[in-house]
Amino acid sequence: MFTGLSAFPLTPVTDHGIDEESFAGLVQRLAAARVDSITALGSTGSYPYLDRAERARAARLAVEHAAATPVIVGIGALRTRDVLELAQDAQDAGASGVLLAPVSYQALTADEVFGLYADVTAELSVPLVVYDNPGTTHFTFTDDLYTRIAELPNVASVKIPGVPADPGAAAERVSALRALLPASVTIGVSGDPLAATGLNAGCHAWYSVVAGTLPEPALAITRAASTGDATAATAESERLQPLWELFARHGSLRVVSAIAETLGLLGHPNLTRPLRGLPDHDRAAVTHVVQQLELH
Amino acid sequence: MFTGLSAFPLTPVTDHGIDEESFAGLVQRLAAARVDSITALGSTGSYPYLDRAERARAARLAVEHAAATPVIVGIGALRTRDVLELAQDAQDAGASGVLLAPVSYQALTADEVFGLYADVTAELSVPLVVYDNPGTTHFTFTDDLYTRIAELPNVASVKIPGVPADPGAAAERVSALRALLPASVTIGVSGDPLAATGLNAGCHAWYSVVAGTLPEPALAITRAASTGDATAATAESERLQPLWELFARHGSLRVVSAIAETLGLLGHPNLTRPLRGLPDHDRAAVTHVVQQLELH
Repeated sequence: MFTGLSAFPLTPVTDHGIDEESFAGLVQRLAAARVDSITALGSTGSYPYLDRAERARAARLAVEHAAATPVIVGIGALRTRDVLELAQDAQDAGASGVLLAPVSYQALTADEVFGLYADVTAELSVPLVVYDNPGTTHFTFTDDLYTRIAELPNVASVKIPGVPADPGAAAERVSALRALLPASVTIGVSGDPLAATGLNAGCHAWYSVVAGTLPEPALAITRAASTGDATAATAESERLQPLWELFARHGSLRVVSAIAETLGLLGHPNLTRPLRGLPDHDRAAVTHVVQQLELH
Repeated sequence: MFTGLSAFPLTPVTDHGIDEESFAGLVQRLAAARVDSITALGSTGSYPYLDRAERARAARLAVEHAAATPVIVGIGALRTRDVLELAQDAQDAGASGVLLAPVSYQALTADEVFGLYADVTAELSVPLVVYDNPGTTHFTFTDDLYTRIAELPNVASVKIPGVPADPGAAAERVSALRALLPASVTIGVSGDPLAATGLNAGCHAWYSVVAGTLPEPALAITRAASTGDATAATAESERLQPLWELFARHGSLRVVSAIAETLGLLGHPNLTRPLRGLPDHDRAAVTHVVQQLELH
């Protein structure tokens, strides 16, 4: 389950809460595309903006509409007490695994982050993905901390924030990390623009923003890399360069939200305020790229 | 109300929720010391870690135990919907003002932050302090954004993150900002180590971490600066240099938590997990500084 392509769908909201119909449609679309797993309530799924009841409901909907595709559920929160409750809710909803980032307000120490994972993994009955996302958590894992956490029970995978752009350096990095972690713990790349590089460098999984809205091109990259065709994986990623440029300019969340709107997968607005969709002229640029790259 | 010394008390917690007795004691201590206002549920008061019911309860306790001292209540949250609810709760509790930081997970744009303040100030019936704290929110205000937000209804004060260490540069900065904002909007300095510099440079208020636990030395600085005795304000701040060094090393929250424990004002642990108090050897250093500086 913690290998291949894990797709992170949006959790669209309206003024009245989660747009359940659109969310169910996004999940069904991913299952139909045959992604390897679906991670509901990741950063792309706006987990920290939703309350406990909304998150429990989204977890249930994801499991229901994913059919046979395994569902991983994000359980991050600022407070350990809340994370433990969210873990229980995710398990009750039928999640096959959970994803946990060290969300911070006050900067966390390495010992505090280790303590968080120790407290949570001790209570889990499903496997956990360590979610390293310094862009949103403002916490940076060291290799020493990865190693300590990977020895905790139920830790199944580490979602690393990216790899060096140079293929040789990427392979060296993944190989060094591989040597530090137990063989049972997979390494998954995130940061979509360098995902092909990461998979070619030996990452077992891609935890993917873009796949949550556009599973086909992400599957093309993942399948090419998994059959050893690094050239094809790289070529498909390079074809998507205009998309990666939009991600860099606006943040991936606002871009996939606009793409999903363009494709009629959800309404507007669909993000939780104070977040807003892209202004009109930027949305036009997104629509142009969708047409140019024939994304669907 | 938005001038002089505003003291930010801790909100101590135990495994069972807020330690109400200790919290009430902290608030009473500040009122007895005659600080100019008390800001409950600031960053030092762990606002983002507490749930809505806990925050409503803390706001009520603060107002009840502050007697005649005005109470400002922090209403920050990731989602605008939640901020609006928290504002209502604070007003219902009898808050004289509210404090709002643009808390982020996904990085916010300037337009999104402006939209947050526009949405919230439109609903308020008490004045608001704009809380600029890039260390925790990871959002940086521009002067242009300050100016736009200061024109919104009910905006009464801006809590700036600090001033340049050089007194001339600090005076220039405060004067430049003063020229941009309506006369009715006060400028308050935060970042305790440079608070004396900020007050001497013309800031009207000090939004103070240390005053929440140690009101006396903070009042000495504030009173000296307000009577134009810049030398005395600077001298008292320089006397506290060992304390500022602890703040820089461990973050101010963990240090004031340890000081409050040393003074018997609350129990251990008192922070919300995953946050933890200082390790023993660092706590010993805090106790040493408390004794050395005769803090009480």
